Amino acid sequence: MSRRLWIGLVLFSVLAIGQVTAQEVMPEIVAAFDMIWLTVAGAMVFFMQAGFAMVETGLTRAKNASNIIMKNLMDFSVGALAYFAVGWGLMYGTSAGGFIGTDQFFLAGADSAVFRDWFFQVVFAATAATIVSGAMAERTKYSGYLLYSIVVTAVIYPVSGHWIWNGGWLAEMGFHDFAGSTVVHSVGAWAALVGAIVIGARRGKYVKVGGQVTVKAIQGHNMPLAALGVFILWFGWYGFNAGSTLAGMDADIAYVATTTTLAASAGAIAAMFTSWVWFGKPDPSMSLNGALAGLVAITAGTWVISPSVAILVGLIGGVLVVISVEVIDKVLHIDDPVGAVSVHGVVGAWGTLAVGLFGDLEKIGSGLTRGGQIGVQLVGVAVVFAWVVVVAFVLFGILKAVGLLRVDEGDEMLGLDISEHGAESYSGFQIFSNM
Amino acid sequence: MSRRLWIGLVLFSVLAIGQVTAQEVMPEIVAAFDMIWLTVAGAMVFFMQAGFAMVETGLTRAKNASNIIMKNLMDFSVGALAYFAVGWGLMYGTSAGGFIGTDQFFLAGADSAVFRDWFFQVVFAATAATIVSGAMAERTKYSGYLLYSIVVTAVIYPVSGHWIWNGGWLAEMGFHDFAGSTVVHSVGAWAALVGAIVIGARRGKYVKVGGQVTVKAIQGHNMPLAALGVFILWFGWYGFNAGSTLAGMDADIAYVATTTTLAASAGAIAAMFTSWVWFGKPDPSMSLNGALAGLVAITAGTWVISPSVAILVGLIGGVLVVISVEVIDKVLHIDDPVGAVSVHGVVGAWGTLAVGLFGDLEKIGSGLTRGGQIGVQLVGVAVVFAWVVVVAFVLFGILKAVGLLRVDEGDEMLGLDISEHGAESYSGFQIFSNM
Amino acid sequence: MSRRLWIGLVLFSVLAIGQVTAQEVMPEIVAAFDMIWLTVAGAMVFFMQAGFAMVETGLTRAKNASNIIMKNLMDFSVGALAYFAVGWGLMYGTSAGGFIGTDQFFLAGADSAVFRDWFFQVVFAATAATIVSGAMAERTKYSGYLLYSIVVTAVIYPVSGHWIWNGGWLAEMGFHDFAGSTVVHSVGAWAALVGAIVIGARRGKYVKVGGQVTVKAIQGHNMPLAALGVFILWFGWYGFNAGSTLAGMDADIAYVATTTTLAASAGAIAAMFTSWVWFGKPDPSMSLNGALAGLVAITAGTWVISPSVAILVGLIGGVLVVISVEVIDKVLHIDDPVGAVSVHGVVGAWGTLAVGLFGDLEKIGSGLTRGGQIGVQLVGVAVVFAWVVVVAFVLFGILKAVGLLRVDEGDEMLGLDISEHGAESYSGFQIFSNM
Repeated sequence: MSRRLWIGLVLFSVLAIGQVTAQEVMPEIVAAFDMIWLTVAGAMVFFMQAGFAMVETGLTRAKNASNIIMKNLMDFSVGALAYFAVGWGLMYGTSAGGFIGTDQFFLAGADSAVFRDWFFQVVFAATAATIVSGAMAERTKYSGYLLYSIVVTAVIYPVSGHWIWNGGWLAEMGFHDFAGSTVVHSVGAWAALVGAIVIGARRGKYVKVGGQVTVKAIQGHNMPLAALGVFILWFGWYGFNAGSTLAGMDADIAYVATTTTLAASAGAIAAMFTSWVWFGKPDPSMSLNGALAGLVAITAGTWVISPSVAILVGLIGGVLVVISVEVIDKVLHIDDPVGAVSVHGVVGAWGTLAVGLFGDLEKIGSGLTRGGQIGVQLVGVAVVFAWVVVVAFVLFGILKAVGLLRVDEGDEMLGLDISEHGAESYSGFQIFSNM
Repeated sequence: MSRRLWIGLVLFSVLAIGQVTAQEVMPEIVAAFDMIWLTVAGAMVFFMQAGFAMVETGLTRAKNASNIIMKNLMDFSVGALAYFAVGWGLMYGTSAGGFIGTDQFFLAGADSAVFRDWFFQVVFAATAATIVSGAMAERTKYSGYLLYSIVVTAVIYPVSGHWIWNGGWLAEMGFHDFAGSTVVHSVGAWAALVGAIVIGARRGKYVKVGGQVTVKAIQGHNMPLAALGVFILWFGWYGFNAGSTLAGMDADIAYVATTTTLAASAGAIAAMFTSWVWFGKPDPSMSLNGALAGLVAITAGTWVISPSVAILVGLIGGVLVVISVEVIDKVLHIDDPVGAVSVHGVVGAWGTLAVGLFGDLEKIGSGLTRGGQIGVQLVGVAVVFAWVVVVAFVLFGILKAVGLLRVDEGDEMLGLDISEHGAESYSGFQIFSNM
Repeated sequence: MSRRLWIGLVLFSVLAIGQVTAQEVMPEIVAAFDMIWLTVAGAMVFFMQAGFAMVETGLTRAKNASNIIMKNLMDFSVGALAYFAVGWGLMYGTSAGGFIGTDQFFLAGADSAVFRDWFFQVVFAATAATIVSGAMAERTKYSGYLLYSIVVTAVIYPVSGHWIWNGGWLAEMGFHDFAGSTVVHSVGAWAALVGAIVIGARRGKYVKVGGQVTVKAIQGHNMPLAALGVFILWFGWYGFNAGSTLAGMDADIAYVATTTTLAASAGAIAAMFTSWVWFGKPDPSMSLNGALAGLVAITAGTWVISPSVAILVGLIGGVLVVISVEVIDKVLHIDDPVGAVSVHGVVGAWGTLAVGLFGDLEKIGSGLTRGGQIGVQLVGVAVVFAWVVVVAFVLFGILKAVGLLRVDEGDEMLGLDISEHGAESYSGFQIFSNM
């Protein structure tokens, strides 16, 4: 109560002196818009953690539900502390040659604008981290997951983020990724891909009989929760994309919300029809992933792509996600229980490339030709892929070597809820192991 | 980052010239308030899709949960594209004689204000569409539902919406519906009513033995999800009603939130006590529907009805919903699994009429007398009822005639999750068919 | 639509006269920021009701799920009406000697600022009320619970709230509680403590064999819902804490969001490690309660405590909550099914004390020394404890005496869903009573 009075008094004093014009108060007004816009948008992006938790829980088995929830809770919690201590500084600190930030660790010297930007950024860092948990679900050691989350939020995400979002060398080249198809989603997904490869498939997922591999579908246990998760993610995405205007007075906030809406819708529809044609019936989990694919696809270009083209970008994202899920599972035999690599990685790359193909070059403002922009987007996708894959192989390799990566066979069969946490997720319900 | 700098530079340039006063910058500030207010409110209304999905899923059987989720996901997705292509233009395009809009299809020529308004409006259109899924749950063909959703968001909702919210002929008469008790909720509900009648009841719901009809209660399978859905809807309703001020600097934003809160609370309490007195115990699903009834009831008059009267309006809504659910089920033998017709239609009509009975005539500003306002509200309710019922009968009649309306008996018994989607919602759980 | 035009016209008329400066329009701009900020924040705090409902439902048994949901729905509903009629006036009406408010009942004479503040406050009052339902879950009579909710929102919460947040005698002493560790959380928790003591433990919870008491763990039935609830609460807490700046132009909004984020994260981590060390495995429900403990702990000092110290405050909160849950259960044999007394009471007291220990004295602005501030914080904690405990003992004593407090043994064994509401929460699922 007293604070509001204080602000009112200051403003009145300032204004009461006499010849005061908009000139004097405008910076305060701009700052106030930025503050409430980024705080609200940041809270919405935080809520995406609930979405990820529900999607991943719903699409996996009941015996691992609490484990997945613990991972989602903890990747945000340890991630927030790691991003506070180290990550923010590496990403947004004073640049050393466009490669890495060098100060502002522990938010040293932060003013109100830095707190604002940190709050909005920390929820992005956590998004990158949490993507991994889905791809490695149902067989990863909890302690190893904690260690991994620290590394991704303290180092992996901030370094490539610095290159692109803090005027680093990729930004200098003209690379455009408005809200993070590559910066956030692909970073998480490529780490997830490496994690899924290094840890190997869930037991019983790919059974070799003779030289032939039989692929077993392992059903998720709670589709309503998975759907709820997708709706929560979609809701939070309005904070993720529209908030990435970073300016509360930006006239394009709703433009971004519009392209986001259209791409997500198109992605859901495209994935549904693709599954319908391919498998004979419209598949719920594919359709849900299609909505997410539409969202990931438009994230890079949401501000520079027209509404009609946003539909096209989302449609292609929705088709791609179904193909990618099938190829990764049936052809490559990489076990990604929730399709995270496809949704965030493959489609994230597509969305980043779509900026080059369809983005308004004037708005992008890189001064590049169409071909040049396409080239730079490809470079960005490739470079981030290389950066994440290399570091992630080292990281997961070490975790595997020291025995912190995978639970043993008995624990996996029993379920990680009991073996890792001594807890049951659905006490009192009759549940049959569906494996 | 670059955008914020750009905006800052422009503002500073403008201000630095010298004699600048509030006059120059005020329109930008007003626009900025409208932009973030409607985007945030729109995102909240979008989130209501999750609420509808959870309510409808929770109040029906486990064997149809994924089907309901798919319908809720898809009515928004196809609805958004249909409203983008056609619906918005018919509703907010240049009026042809107050009856229908004629341009702005595919958002042609849209500026930032149009994107803002479209984003806020599309979530309303989807709300109208999604209401139907509840009333037709557990026996509707998925493909037919997709077609229906296109028609409601492209044509049915926009046309009557044009009459009322784009200065059309009902608006000219002085009809007042602030946030859509009629424009949104009744439109969805009357279509739902027709759909429920044309498709017929779920098998086993009304069993004729001799001349006597036995009404079977079919229990929902997940009350916590249904309750979560109601809380989500209530939360989203603050965007729905308070956002309908349409102006971010409107001093009545919290007034609307206040009447909304009081009416919803009163509705929940009234439905609870009504069920307590009538059935002997306070019924959870009736109480949840009572909260929604309170919300629907106040939606039309939330800005023109006083807080104390809002309680009365909500109370009556809460009583009405219980009576209506019972009459529609036990007397009329129309099978509406979640009570959507009662909540959104009957109570929506009550809320629209309440504007005439209790609304502040000065705020309404129609220049009508009390009696005149009541009359106009009645006309609006009746006209929209007629419009929707006629078109919906044609629509569902065609779908029925071509065999796209109802699944066959075996599929219905098996459950739509398996028959329509080849999926299980709760893999691993022991579930007994409760039918 | 017409309203926006109207506002635009007024502003343009005002500005068109000529020599208008920022002086004239600034108060309107400040008011507009306050309005949308508090409305959005209030809606987020409202959504915390869903969080409480899911946490409490998830951590108790399936046979009582609908009962818990009804209590959460109704404590808000009756609470909103009670706070409208009486509570707001007692809390924010004209003060009688710093002890109690004396006017504004039924929001008489309210202007737009009062509606704004009421909407933000009512969701706080409901938070205090709802905390109790968790501690008394699974054996409380529904009718008694309704009566209790009226008293807490109409009297208990407003009176101590008046002392602290409306310039009452504790505020005069220099007591600082920014967003309500004591005003909201402890008030709910101390009432919950008394309620849990007066009503006694759930049957079978503490079995006396010889002189020895065996403590039985009663597992919650749905951990994903409990986790979802915690994420919802955490999301809503950004409205709770950052909204408590009460000013939309406050430059510290994100500062508050930052300390809130860090403390919650630290609380989750600390509780996880404490349970890991103590019980041998990282416990999900303890970790979830740890996040809430971090949030409760920082609530009082979120604006006056530095980010690094916020981590410390959260860490201690996370350790404390595990110890407190164990002591209350295993040593004191008070049956608090969800740990509400520990999370909101014990940790609420810690957070309030932390303001004295670590708060920036200049920002607090009480003029007290470090020692003086610590003393005043202790006085505040003790006084509110005494106030709530005394009134709650009277209240629950009366309810017990007239037979409205506890369901009978058969009803408790059967489950409150059936006995109190005649409803089943999970129709069709095979559920074994886990008691």
